[in-house]
Amino acid sequence: MPPFNHSALLTDLYELTMAQGYFQCKKLEPATFSLFIRKYPPERGYFVAAGLEDVLDFLEGFSFGDQDIDYLRSTGIFAAEFLDFLRGLRFTGAVWAVPEGRLVFKDEPILEVSAPIIEAQLVETFIINQVNLQTMIATKASRCVHAAQGRAVIDFSLRRTQGIDAGMKAARASYLAGCSSTSNVLAGHRYGIPIVGTMAHSFISSFEREIDAFRSFAASFPTNCILLIDTYDTLAGARKAVTVAREMARRGHHLRGVRIDSGDLLALGREVRSILDESGLKDVKIVGSGGLDEYDLAALADGQAPYDSYGVGTKMGVSADAPWLDIAYKLVEHGGRSVMKTSTGKVSLPGAKQIFRYCRESRLRKDLLGLRGESYPGAEPLLQKAMDHGKRIAPSPSLEDLKTRFLAEYESLDEGVRSIRSPEEYPVDLSPGLRDLLEKTQGQVYQTELGES
Amino acid sequence: MPPFNHSALLTDLYELTMAQGYFQCKKLEPATFSLFIRKYPPERGYFVAAGLEDVLDFLEGFSFGDQDIDYLRSTGIFAAEFLDFLRGLRFTGAVWAVPEGRLVFKDEPILEVSAPIIEAQLVETFIINQVNLQTMIATKASRCVHAAQGRAVIDFSLRRTQGIDAGMKAARASYLAGCSSTSNVLAGHRYGIPIVGTMAHSFISSFEREIDAFRSFAASFPTNCILLIDTYDTLAGARKAVTVAREMARRGHHLRGVRIDSGDLLALGREVRSILDESGLKDVKIVGSGGLDEYDLAALADGQAPYDSYGVGTKMGVSADAPWLDIAYKLVEHGGRSVMKTSTGKVSLPGAKQIFRYCRESRLRKDLLGLRGESYPGAEPLLQKAMDHGKRIAPSPSLEDLKTRFLAEYESLDEGVRSIRSPEEYPVDLSPGLRDLLEKTQGQVYQTELGES
Repeated sequence: MPPFNHSALLTDLYELTMAQGYFQCKKLEPATFSLFIRKYPPERGYFVAAGLEDVLDFLEGFSFGDQDIDYLRSTGIFAAEFLDFLRGLRFTGAVWAVPEGRLVFKDEPILEVSAPIIEAQLVETFIINQVNLQTMIATKASRCVHAAQGRAVIDFSLRRTQGIDAGMKAARASYLAGCSSTSNVLAGHRYGIPIVGTMAHSFISSFEREIDAFRSFAASFPTNCILLIDTYDTLAGARKAVTVAREMARRGHHLRGVRIDSGDLLALGREVRSILDESGLKDVKIVGSGGLDEYDLAALADGQAPYDSYGVGTKMGVSADAPWLDIAYKLVEHGGRSVMKTSTGKVSLPGAKQIFRYCRESRLRKDLLGLRGESYPGAEPLLQKAMDHGKRIAPSPSLEDLKTRFLAEYESLDEGVRSIRSPEEYPVDLSPGLRDLLEKTQGQVYQTELGES
Repeated sequence: MPPFNHSALLTDLYELTMAQGYFQCKKLEPATFSLFIRKYPPERGYFVAAGLEDVLDFLEGFSFGDQDIDYLRSTGIFAAEFLDFLRGLRFTGAVWAVPEGRLVFKDEPILEVSAPIIEAQLVETFIINQVNLQTMIATKASRCVHAAQGRAVIDFSLRRTQGIDAGMKAARASYLAGCSSTSNVLAGHRYGIPIVGTMAHSFISSFEREIDAFRSFAASFPTNCILLIDTYDTLAGARKAVTVAREMARRGHHLRGVRIDSGDLLALGREVRSILDESGLKDVKIVGSGGLDEYDLAALADGQAPYDSYGVGTKMGVSADAPWLDIAYKLVEHGGRSVMKTSTGKVSLPGAKQIFRYCRESRLRKDLLGLRGESYPGAEPLLQKAMDHGKRIAPSPSLEDLKTRFLAEYESLDEGVRSIRSPEEYPVDLSPGLRDLLEKTQGQVYQTELGES
């Protein structure tokens, strides 16, 4: 199974048939496509932009190899001259983008691609795929971290993410959005994210007695031992952990913590905390896990559950209550002409855009969605040129820097908008320039398309 | 961004810490782990097994490279002797598995790994990840194909699958489960799946007039032209398609179809069919798409919507109403001892298993979940040895053969179990041998773990 992370064939066939259509009618003018989210999924009032780094990597490496061309020829769909054209094709355009970790709202472009239309079209599928996934997970993770009210949230999702790519991106996006660490070893290696992990139920059950498993693990990890205590009975497990902690103390070691992975986490957490405290083990931490999401974390925080950190897996890693975003990549300008779509429920705004963000007294106040050429003093323009002539303009920022910036901006967003249930809507107005263009383009569409037949 | 499809670091850290624990206490006996789904997601009554091919690829290639070892050393978590051990480690075990495309039911092992416990433990994360994803998507796709009642279902999901790996696996799993084709070009290349695709709204809006876009596309694809008619107004689009179809006919060409991607698909399909039929274009097909899932497809089939095929994307590709399975990989046997877990809501059945399937008069009757050593004449044993000593036992079956077998078995499953809403439960009994073992193991657990403290 050779890798497929970078192939130019990672596209929908219609991108290639359209490209041949453009090629054959010599339609090679520059175009701008805008990537935006049409509406909020349930309970969401903001998004955390993510995925740009992979998009830029893909665009820099974009090319069709000989095997790709051979395969396309074998389908019988394409003309020989078009395949020759594809063989030499590279991405030569520009990308304007909201930096990763910045907040974005519905209808706002997360990125825009300005390039000859064939190039901009062929990269659509990959761009949507990656920004959809990573923005969705970063948003979900930010909700989990917010709901945990200061307790560390650890990404445990790799085993149930939708594939390997998702597992890697979930680790990165959740760390960007405030998680403390991940269980994903390759993500630790690739992205420099702190990794954590201790033991599973299988380790316990591989020993004849639970306490033998505890003792063996404590011997292997004298300074970093967290015991999983719910394999058979959580409270009995906690009492065995106390026994092992005392044995460790006699050797000058220290039990770091216990983990509870099933059952009523609120009640069990309290009982286990009591057992530990009554045994003089007040500094032994408790980790909670097992099917948690932001709603569970909020309930645990409300109940002042005595957990020190949470492992959050599946439901964060697949964004279980909203496993896809209504994200679209739409042509907004072509050959100097602004364009839009008027399909039922899928209207797009014309023109290359800019987002103007107003901040006052360290609070986000409102955004103005305007045109790329506009300028509003006092507002921060969010879309930055990230690529020109097919090359990155600046080195990639570090993941730590992106995370720091995210946390700062998130702090400045009103609690009502951050709420994990029924959030308030953050105000996004259309600029006068965009309003004019919308009206004009709409008028042209109605005149050309809807009056003629 | 180098590939990460195959790295042995694609694992949760606790697999490695447990491995060091096993290594240091010299626990190297063979173990058997069983992969099964604990319960049905909403509205499901069966699963379509998928993912085995990737698991076998992964196991055959399993090894830690020098960079992997260097990274692990840099974490400061691992002992030098253990890292030396990892450097030479390969997967040397056996895999018993339900072949891809066969039906499985809850609690039944989709696969079992029998190997020295460290090896079987380290590969857990990858195995769960791939079988979870692929089984989930194959199951979802089978529901879509079933609901479409004979109309072709095309996989359109790549742009919104959760990452690239998911996009590739969704194309393969959905084809396995009855889809006719995919829009994913790389999946066409890699897996030999037929690819389809025509045009997007951006192609239309790149022309000043919709009809110019239609004419240009018809010129480029005289024998394979499907026009997207909903960019501005679907019925006006249909009338322009009629104009273009007549122009094509004068050149000896034939308009293959039109596609509707938004709005009320049932009403629009009927109106567009009328427009086409009244213009003598009865053989021009209609393709429906736009946010469809099995529930929409069933409603369209019930309304006798005049579509010839459907493009089904996001909701199938992320299994939107059930984006993860409650799948687990549990130690069931170790060093000759049967083991189980009794955590709240997460009980596992002990022992290496076999599924015995009873079929009569071409109908699936019931399964008996038993032990690997048992045998029941008249029943088909479903788990087959797929790998021994770390090597595949037989060449991989072709995707076409797997699909053919799936379709035949699916036909033999009662309609009540296949229903996309409130399905009946397929009968799975425990064999006498498994019942005895369960009772015995449970007794031991209670005696050892729950009585002692």
